[in-house]
Amino acid sequence: MRSTWIKRSHEKRGKPPGTVIHVGEVHVLKPQVTCFVYSPEELRQTQLEENLEPFLSDHVRDDNRNTWLNIEGVNDVNIVKQVGAIFGIDSLTLEDIGDTGNRPKIVEFSNYVFIVIRSLSIDGVTGRLDPEQISLILGSNFLLTFCERQSPLFDPVIQRLRLSNGRIRNSGLDYLAYSLIDVVVDNYFAVIEKAADKIEAIEQVVTQGPSRSTLESIYRLKKDLLFLRKSVWPLREIGSRMINGDIAFINEKTKPYLRDVLDHSIHAIDTIETCRDIVTGLMDLYLTAISAKMNQVMKLLTIIGTIFMPLSFLAGWYGMNFKYMPELEWKYGYPAVMLVAFVTIISMLIVFKRRKWM
Amino acid sequence: MRSTWIKRSHEKRGKPPGTVIHVGEVHVLKPQVTCFVYSPEELRQTQLEENLEPFLSDHVRDDNRNTWLNIEGVNDVNIVKQVGAIFGIDSLTLEDIGDTGNRPKIVEFSNYVFIVIRSLSIDGVTGRLDPEQISLILGSNFLLTFCERQSPLFDPVIQRLRLSNGRIRNSGLDYLAYSLIDVVVDNYFAVIEKAADKIEAIEQVVTQGPSRSTLESIYRLKKDLLFLRKSVWPLREIGSRMINGDIAFINEKTKPYLRDVLDHSIHAIDTIETCRDIVTGLMDLYLTAISAKMNQVMKLLTIIGTIFMPLSFLAGWYGMNFKYMPELEWKYGYPAVMLVAFVTIISMLIVFKRRKWM
Amino acid sequence: MRSTWIKRSHEKRGKPPGTVIHVGEVHVLKPQVTCFVYSPEELRQTQLEENLEPFLSDHVRDDNRNTWLNIEGVNDVNIVKQVGAIFGIDSLTLEDIGDTGNRPKIVEFSNYVFIVIRSLSIDGVTGRLDPEQISLILGSNFLLTFCERQSPLFDPVIQRLRLSNGRIRNSGLDYLAYSLIDVVVDNYFAVIEKAADKIEAIEQVVTQGPSRSTLESIYRLKKDLLFLRKSVWPLREIGSRMINGDIAFINEKTKPYLRDVLDHSIHAIDTIETCRDIVTGLMDLYLTAISAKMNQVMKLLTIIGTIFMPLSFLAGWYGMNFKYMPELEWKYGYPAVMLVAFVTIISMLIVFKRRKWM
Amino acid sequence: MRSTWIKRSHEKRGKPPGTVIHVGEVHVLKPQVTCFVYSPEELRQTQLEENLEPFLSDHVRDDNRNTWLNIEGVNDVNIVKQVGAIFGIDSLTLEDIGDTGNRPKIVEFSNYVFIVIRSLSIDGVTGRLDPEQISLILGSNFLLTFCERQSPLFDPVIQRLRLSNGRIRNSGLDYLAYSLIDVVVDNYFAVIEKAADKIEAIEQVVTQGPSRSTLESIYRLKKDLLFLRKSVWPLREIGSRMINGDIAFINEKTKPYLRDVLDHSIHAIDTIETCRDIVTGLMDLYLTAISAKMNQVMKLLTIIGTIFMPLSFLAGWYGMNFKYMPELEWKYGYPAVMLVAFVTIISMLIVFKRRKWM
Amino acid sequence: MRSTWIKRSHEKRGKPPGTVIHVGEVHVLKPQVTCFVYSPEELRQTQLEENLEPFLSDHVRDDNRNTWLNIEGVNDVNIVKQVGAIFGIDSLTLEDIGDTGNRPKIVEFSNYVFIVIRSLSIDGVTGRLDPEQISLILGSNFLLTFCERQSPLFDPVIQRLRLSNGRIRNSGLDYLAYSLIDVVVDNYFAVIEKAADKIEAIEQVVTQGPSRSTLESIYRLKKDLLFLRKSVWPLREIGSRMINGDIAFINEKTKPYLRDVLDHSIHAIDTIETCRDIVTGLMDLYLTAISAKMNQVMKLLTIIGTIFMPLSFLAGWYGMNFKYMPELEWKYGYPAVMLVAFVTIISMLIVFKRRKWM
Repeated sequence: MRSTWIKRSHEKRGKPPGTVIHVGEVHVLKPQVTCFVYSPEELRQTQLEENLEPFLSDHVRDDNRNTWLNIEGVNDVNIVKQVGAIFGIDSLTLEDIGDTGNRPKIVEFSNYVFIVIRSLSIDGVTGRLDPEQISLILGSNFLLTFCERQSPLFDPVIQRLRLSNGRIRNSGLDYLAYSLIDVVVDNYFAVIEKAADKIEAIEQVVTQGPSRSTLESIYRLKKDLLFLRKSVWPLREIGSRMINGDIAFINEKTKPYLRDVLDHSIHAIDTIETCRDIVTGLMDLYLTAISAKMNQVMKLLTIIGTIFMPLSFLAGWYGMNFKYMPELEWKYGYPAVMLVAFVTIISMLIVFKRRKWM
Repeated sequence: MRSTWIKRSHEKRGKPPGTVIHVGEVHVLKPQVTCFVYSPEELRQTQLEENLEPFLSDHVRDDNRNTWLNIEGVNDVNIVKQVGAIFGIDSLTLEDIGDTGNRPKIVEFSNYVFIVIRSLSIDGVTGRLDPEQISLILGSNFLLTFCERQSPLFDPVIQRLRLSNGRIRNSGLDYLAYSLIDVVVDNYFAVIEKAADKIEAIEQVVTQGPSRSTLESIYRLKKDLLFLRKSVWPLREIGSRMINGDIAFINEKTKPYLRDVLDHSIHAIDTIETCRDIVTGLMDLYLTAISAKMNQVMKLLTIIGTIFMPLSFLAGWYGMNFKYMPELEWKYGYPAVMLVAFVTIISMLIVFKRRKWM
Repeated sequence: MRSTWIKRSHEKRGKPPGTVIHVGEVHVLKPQVTCFVYSPEELRQTQLEENLEPFLSDHVRDDNRNTWLNIEGVNDVNIVKQVGAIFGIDSLTLEDIGDTGNRPKIVEFSNYVFIVIRSLSIDGVTGRLDPEQISLILGSNFLLTFCERQSPLFDPVIQRLRLSNGRIRNSGLDYLAYSLIDVVVDNYFAVIEKAADKIEAIEQVVTQGPSRSTLESIYRLKKDLLFLRKSVWPLREIGSRMINGDIAFINEKTKPYLRDVLDHSIHAIDTIETCRDIVTGLMDLYLTAISAKMNQVMKLLTIIGTIFMPLSFLAGWYGMNFKYMPELEWKYGYPAVMLVAFVTIISMLIVFKRRKWM
Repeated sequence: MRSTWIKRSHEKRGKPPGTVIHVGEVHVLKPQVTCFVYSPEELRQTQLEENLEPFLSDHVRDDNRNTWLNIEGVNDVNIVKQVGAIFGIDSLTLEDIGDTGNRPKIVEFSNYVFIVIRSLSIDGVTGRLDPEQISLILGSNFLLTFCERQSPLFDPVIQRLRLSNGRIRNSGLDYLAYSLIDVVVDNYFAVIEKAADKIEAIEQVVTQGPSRSTLESIYRLKKDLLFLRKSVWPLREIGSRMINGDIAFINEKTKPYLRDVLDHSIHAIDTIETCRDIVTGLMDLYLTAISAKMNQVMKLLTIIGTIFMPLSFLAGWYGMNFKYMPELEWKYGYPAVMLVAFVTIISMLIVFKRRKWM
Repeated sequence: MRSTWIKRSHEKRGKPPGTVIHVGEVHVLKPQVTCFVYSPEELRQTQLEENLEPFLSDHVRDDNRNTWLNIEGVNDVNIVKQVGAIFGIDSLTLEDIGDTGNRPKIVEFSNYVFIVIRSLSIDGVTGRLDPEQISLILGSNFLLTFCERQSPLFDPVIQRLRLSNGRIRNSGLDYLAYSLIDVVVDNYFAVIEKAADKIEAIEQVVTQGPSRSTLESIYRLKKDLLFLRKSVWPLREIGSRMINGDIAFINEKTKPYLRDVLDHSIHAIDTIETCRDIVTGLMDLYLTAISAKMNQVMKLLTIIGTIFMPLSFLAGWYGMNFKYMPELEWKYGYPAVMLVAFVTIISMLIVFKRRKWM
């Protein structure tokens, strides 16, 4: 399977900047465009068809109502371009929306602020990390969000939006943007918890008796944590830029919430680093378990060899066919050899017991 | 057992911000609420019942007396909400109080400053780290503290509070808050000392002869130190923000004390890092001890094999049944073979002595 | 083969600063000098002969048209010196152009800004990294670029330059410089993707059964990533200096594009670091695979030895030639020994099965 | 023995801040208090008895003469408290003086600056690091120094102080403080040199043939270097705060000297880091020497096994007692087997020679 | 041999600051003092005798001519002191000149700036690093340089100084100082190239078949790189202080050259770090090569043991002397055993082939 940490962008190379091309896997057949127009008094939700202009053009200029356009699926670049044309989005921004392998970042423009974050979820079937790029464009009276697929990620926010007395309905679009980012950051903790569960499962296996597949689990876990870190780390900068960056579209009242989401990001990063350190320790534990096993194997061979090699020699000795071997003629030769063999075995066993090899 | 370094927060996901939910283990059946109202002249300690409002409402507005409300147990979110309503605490703060898996932090609000720290103690029975989140809310005339359990942690401070001529009674609530934080930081050193004791115990075991459980001890120690670091590290920032952050509720006179507690935190971090480095060294020591043991086992096998394989061959040789084997007929054949065997053994032993294998 | 990460500079030592000497491999027989003179209305492309002055001298002073001089091949220092004389380039700059082992950097002069970057491509035949130093000199009405070899690297930019309505033609030389740097940065991703492919190939090999050449692949990959990092890392500083450095020759309008290229550089660095961490994990995986193989070998030897050493002893025992060995005379002696041997084998096999060695 | 890197502080926990308690080992029976009063013209040295006040009280207010009070031994907290009362020292400072497990630091107060440093020496008998906390309190006309034991550490400074034309006598107390710190920093180099000597000794042992005690030496060296670093590192901050911190008690003229001592500290840190890196390399060298030894052991066993196992089989084969074994009856059977055995041995030896095993 | 990374300074301890003592190896019998007095028009080079004052005293005050005094050999502290007295050099500076174990640094004084750098060369005979401390004192009309030995290091600069139309003659002493530093920095690259050569030589050896001396080479290389880094790293700070530090003796025109030398230093540091990372990779390669060799040895033993132990048992079995062993009497007993032995060998070989052990 294509690894999650790098995206192909063959087609893009050599193109002029601002060329909107979809880079990444295709998750939806046809992008879904949902428009939410709301004021504290009312909320209208509309599913838009392919031609967006007629519906949207008159909302763009309406400063009394908030317009949230949620586009699920960015593989149809036409929709991206249409939306860009209607809302006056820079072509560099549109290019970044189409290229789903971006690093999380925040870019300020004169008429909007552009935020790229990475949502992570765990695929229920394969258990692998499922990254999704979420692009947010926050303007004075519009919020555009672009997801890679149709997912229930934003559902809790939409439900809260429907409550006419909820804070979201009564706050600006910056608060809505915050709510969406908060949902994504909350999701990181679900992923981290899964990683923590895996760590504990592996701990148990390693303590009881590791197999070779254990190592591969550790290795895959390590890679997942690397990817997690890579996704969460830039949020630190995004968060502090949103709080301290003096961005026109972000209200002073929303900042405590943004500070809260920043705190959560830092907490997530901290926990990821701790996980990584623990996994490193696990690796050592595993390696030592392996080498302890080897030690045991060697000990057994040594015990067997040390007991039977001298005895075999003894038996071989009296199997020699010399004509003149007086011992062979003795009456008590055989019992004497038996005694010697017996004493050898016993003394060896005592030595091994003392060295605690048995 | 559930590890100490991550807390579940399933129920919280998707909820609006400021939803107060208890996340973490339940340590007390019924939270205890103790109110201390004091001025330099008098101190009144009251155990509050479930309905807090009647008692508290008239204290809130009294600027002449200091009110310290200590809530032990945060699993009953109703109490948290009640207190929040009475003292005008932001819902984001209340949410953080209920979620006991927070990263230590400091957040300033217009009417109070909110501090989260993590107290650590060692469980007397299991020997494991017992973390507890302590939330402090410092306002102009009130100090609220939320602990996860009933513990004697704050007892020394309470006793000092009872002395009418003590500094605590005669200073503001910021000094009381400092005293509580100081007690928590002092406790870190107890935990670090336990870790240092364990390091020395493991050192001895490794030097004398490690078993496999040694490695697990090292691994667990490493994890504990990781968790310790994660808990203490943010105090650096909290401390410097309290000192340099120009917070209205912190008196200039209290700052030398805060600087002292910051120094202790940095000292703790330093010592934890040193411990971690030493534990890494211990790991190497352990691994080499294991491999030295292996070496010894292999040497024994080699010595035995090197002596008895040639001898067995010799004995086997004269055990052959060829009709025409002149040596077998010789009168001194057997003594000659005995001599050869003897010389072989002796020369081998000399070689091993020289190579210092024996 | 000469490694890619260090260049010889014997001849340069002891020379006064500003001595222009070519250091590095010679990639072209005769440097190609192409001159593009363009304004929004027209574009003229001229291939220049050895004597550059007559043609260039009158362009230098023409502020209405943009002059881009692209020199492919820097081994002929005469051309470098000529160009330097015509455009008034400092001798230190010329020295750096000739020495192709420079670290990427940006240096500002009063009449131009000098940028050194390193383009990377993968040699189609050997699969090795092929570094090339690209020097850009951006003045008010001229852009000079020096490459080490003739390559199609800049072709897409030249094609876009030919479009009379393209952004390049209608923007200043700073935008052209940006476009060239962008092409180089885009190329890094091609190299990173190749590295990612190799990582996955090695992952598969290691999981299935590594050979010794695997390790060398890992080692070579590690070196390539080191070199990549060394080449990309300085772009961080170059980018931010171009954006924030208040350089006269860079237009405010070009800065969003430069910010974009800076973002890409940071993304590249991030991905390289992730690759490096994964490769380190791969190394551990490889080493454990090796040691697991060893373990298996030892187990087999131990199983064989543990079964046959006692049996051989048994057989040897009854091969002794004592005159008085009652067992040898017994009628059922031989079947009894057969039974003993059989029981020994069976019980050993059971033990090994239980220990999961077979 | 109690390790050097952590000090017990059981009694201190729960006490109010500013409680002066001695923490650490007791090095002297009775603290020695020596008072030096000097001006460029004269120097008076007085050994003080238990009751310090009568003597000191009139010196405190004399701004024309410099008073240096050197207290050797801090286990008698009464003396510490007395001195504190006379010179107006904050209780937090007194607490830090008594607790000898402090991290080196600098704290400024309105009437003095408080500096804690750690002197290191090597115990002549055990060869272990002997840390000692040195506390300096520098006021406008007094300098207080608190050592843990009676040592000749400050003797060279005292001798220089006796020279009426020396710089110390003619400079302020800040220069005296500098001289004392300088002596401590100079001592670090003696310790570092000892560590370097040990490194070289271990290098020799490892190269010639390491024993298991070698590893413990490396481990102990590592711990010493860790402790060294922990002691020296904070001097960086102390030094730059003394130079740039605008402290009233430090004369501009003394600053070049402080810069010199800061340079020495940085040099010491640098060298310690280098030592640590070298010790890490030593560890690898050691581990490989061990594994090379193992390799040799295994090779010998393999050579012996590979030669004698086939030969033993051969001998065993013709030791079989079949009635119809034609070879046994042949006249040249025995010489033929001898030839086979001889050829086997020779060819094996050739193989081993080729593989460079012998 | 005394290692290069630490110098003894026994005699210095306890001495007052500013005591000039020579610390380090003695490289010259009698220091050579050469004086260059130059203006754009003329250059006079004079070899000075022991008593420097008569000659120098009248140059000190001549602001029209530049005086460069180059002292080769600092073991005769009298000369250092004389020069110090003539040019008004601080005793702390003189102390640093005599102590050749200094860390590279820059210190500003009112009448001069003092720079310590470390020149590195490779001893032609032993191949070891040969460090040399170079001290530069740059005043308004004089430049003093102190080297540890007589070396051709500065020869190219002296030759350029002789050219009346060269830049050095026509620029100030700051440019001369830059030229000398530049020569030293250029030399680092020679040392780095030697290290790169060694890396490649070791790479080849490791790939083909490492011996134990290989490890020692790696270890020594690592130590050399550590020392290199320690020497070059401080140049970063020295360079930026010279450029940005607003030093009176450094002309604005010289700064581009200093920036160039700073760039080279950063490049050197970068390359050293890359070398260090590669050497770490080499170590892993080496260790795996060793363990692969071990694996091969073990495999051979296992193959031999696995084939011959069962066969030996078989032979031994029919060597038993039981009276009633029917097989022995059978006519085809012997051929049957031969068949069994043959089948055993063949099937074993097939197994080994399949497991790719042969």
